[in-house]
Amino acid sequence: MKNIYAELISIGDEILYGQTLDTNSHFICGELDKIGIRVSRKVTVSDSRDSIMNAFREAEKNADIILITGGLGPTKDDLTKPLLAEYFDSGMKLHEDILEDLKERYAKRGRELNDLNKGQAELPEKCKPVENKFGTAPGMWFEKDNKIFISMPGVPREMQQMMQDSILPKFKEIFDTPVLIHKMIHTVGVPESILAEKLEDWENGLSKEIKLAYLPGLKQVKLRLTASGKDEKHLNALIDQEVDKLYKLVGKYIYGTDEGNLAQKIGDLLLKQNKTIACAESCTGGYLAHLITSNAGSSEYYRGGINPYHNDLKINVLGVRKETIEKYGAVSEQTVIEMAERVRELFNADIGVSTSGVAGPGGGTKDKRVGTVWVALADGTKTQTKLYHFQFDRHGNIEITTNSLLNLVRQTLSSN
Amino acid sequence: MKNIYAELISIGDEILYGQTLDTNSHFICGELDKIGIRVSRKVTVSDSRDSIMNAFREAEKNADIILITGGLGPTKDDLTKPLLAEYFDSGMKLHEDILEDLKERYAKRGRELNDLNKGQAELPEKCKPVENKFGTAPGMWFEKDNKIFISMPGVPREMQQMMQDSILPKFKEIFDTPVLIHKMIHTVGVPESILAEKLEDWENGLSKEIKLAYLPGLKQVKLRLTASGKDEKHLNALIDQEVDKLYKLVGKYIYGTDEGNLAQKIGDLLLKQNKTIACAESCTGGYLAHLITSNAGSSEYYRGGINPYHNDLKINVLGVRKETIEKYGAVSEQTVIEMAERVRELFNADIGVSTSGVAGPGGGTKDKRVGTVWVALADGTKTQTKLYHFQFDRHGNIEITTNSLLNLVRQTLSSN
Repeated sequence: MKNIYAELISIGDEILYGQTLDTNSHFICGELDKIGIRVSRKVTVSDSRDSIMNAFREAEKNADIILITGGLGPTKDDLTKPLLAEYFDSGMKLHEDILEDLKERYAKRGRELNDLNKGQAELPEKCKPVENKFGTAPGMWFEKDNKIFISMPGVPREMQQMMQDSILPKFKEIFDTPVLIHKMIHTVGVPESILAEKLEDWENGLSKEIKLAYLPGLKQVKLRLTASGKDEKHLNALIDQEVDKLYKLVGKYIYGTDEGNLAQKIGDLLLKQNKTIACAESCTGGYLAHLITSNAGSSEYYRGGINPYHNDLKINVLGVRKETIEKYGAVSEQTVIEMAERVRELFNADIGVSTSGVAGPGGGTKDKRVGTVWVALADGTKTQTKLYHFQFDRHGNIEITTNSLLNLVRQTLSSN
Repeated sequence: MKNIYAELISIGDEILYGQTLDTNSHFICGELDKIGIRVSRKVTVSDSRDSIMNAFREAEKNADIILITGGLGPTKDDLTKPLLAEYFDSGMKLHEDILEDLKERYAKRGRELNDLNKGQAELPEKCKPVENKFGTAPGMWFEKDNKIFISMPGVPREMQQMMQDSILPKFKEIFDTPVLIHKMIHTVGVPESILAEKLEDWENGLSKEIKLAYLPGLKQVKLRLTASGKDEKHLNALIDQEVDKLYKLVGKYIYGTDEGNLAQKIGDLLLKQNKTIACAESCTGGYLAHLITSNAGSSEYYRGGINPYHNDLKINVLGVRKETIEKYGAVSEQTVIEMAERVRELFNADIGVSTSGVAGPGGGTKDKRVGTVWVALADGTKTQTKLYHFQFDRHGNIEITTNSLLNLVRQTLSSN
């Protein structure tokens, strides 16, 4: 058993121009981490021969596995395949089975292959093809002097399918990697430097098998404990022991120790308590519903939602009283209270939540500036509200409102 | 005037473990691109001495500007500052003005500086500090042999403020960079290979000053034209000319040529035609509403939406007939027709749209497998429907359903 190191190469001018956010390498890092393969570095290079060849050479020096994404399309600007053929000094070969499969898939959609598509069945002789179920460009698996080079498409869905169905299972089969365990401890309401001060003695006493990192966010700091070694049981016990100590030292700031997002946590809590939720969203415009319904199985606890963007809909469809909106305005404590209570009744849910605010950039007034947000939570016995003054752009304000409300739901459910 | 090349170094195990998505380098790439500085490469390395020092050395060889993010916090796991001091062979110096400023800012929040915070006012002698308005770790600007090294915090808000207020203005002042113009042409409903075939002759005849890239997505392909040179006017004219040609060749697939997205395009069309829209979402669970309301000014044309996840809500709140759902099921042409027509009436909009399908991973049956989706669009004179069989995961199915429906709205509005 030895450490296996991977290096990631993303190819594409669109990433370096700032037009495309590279989520591929994020996904790959997470998946490799789960099976104990360490990513030592990731590099993004442009669609140019020299940059790509240079990246291949450097990566081969540093890592055991080189994972390449991008530049595999059927069009001229895609250079990865010819350059890999050159790098491995390999001729090209037409794979009849891949061609047949492509023909069949196109026929099903009532289309015929053109020359560009046909070219995708041609691969360097020295590689093994990796099946692409969602697209037309196969992946390529090369081996040379105990190094593995794998090329995958840049389209996230295609790359993910390839990783999950072909590449990760193969890695698990051939590598016997050390155990790598992460534990994330979520804290809220304490600045990083204060937390570090409180934890100084504890940190100095940490076992060498454990590495600590502070990951600061907006009003939140995550502590990450990483243990690596051979004995999973021993490492887990070690981590549990340190988490216990952390609870004793800074327990009042800790709101969770697991992975997964806040919407998932709330789903778990709702399921456990056999409760359902419904949302009335104004300023968040469907984002809260989207986060909840992004989780598989959410229909078990999510009843539904409404986003009555205009006041007449808040009144006529949701049932907020006209006088309330006239007297206090749509962005007010009174309005979010009625929104939460009405959506709870109308959608026949245990919990009703609501948002109303000025997301910006327009719509602000002297009294209610951009970033002013009210949220409410009604559970049938009482209705809680919160007022926020956020200072981000439209996207930021929508996101932090949603997270704040999800956190209110979490706190409420956790105190039951 | 010569090309100026930048290399980006992100420091942090959290990125390589797949725990944090690196949005910082995406932001920096986009901002540098706007002022004509080319990012030749970006690299992410771990929180270890060797990786960081090695990245400094390599970047210095390749680029004129080296921008570093991360590893600047007050805690022990943050290595960037001591390593930069070592790299530039520099002693440390306490900046009294920074210390005073920190004290003041802490006092305003009713807190006192601790030793860790005080340490943040100590910087390598050889750097100029860069002000951090949103956090406590100053940035550092080093110069050596005509190379610029700048270190910034990893917290996105702090890094962005530093870039916008200090670093980009300084770059504009000292560099006279070539013009770099991008034009994005958004197409929808045509596969990449078909598009490439149709554009082959045009592509072969492109001027050398223009570079073409295909950026495929779900149901969408973006074409990016990049022109670089000295004469902005000439380059703009050249690009305009090619865009005209593209419209003649594949105009029916083009929905826009700007930086905006499909939801924005629909917003523009609705505004121009003085029309409004309302959404009844089942399987997309609020995502369609979220995409529409992510755009500033959407309240001008977006009336609101409802996501009646459960059938009783489709019936009791939205007003779909009970018999329809009982006879045909929730995922059926009949149901999406009634959903679209009812949300149009109930929300008093010109156009009502609806989605109902099996997003997965659960919920599929023999007749209605995961990925089966119906969408509808009602405009008061007729109601159109579309049936799809998608094959992605839950997120992919939700996203492509939304894109497909937005495209139906675009086509309908464009034919008016």
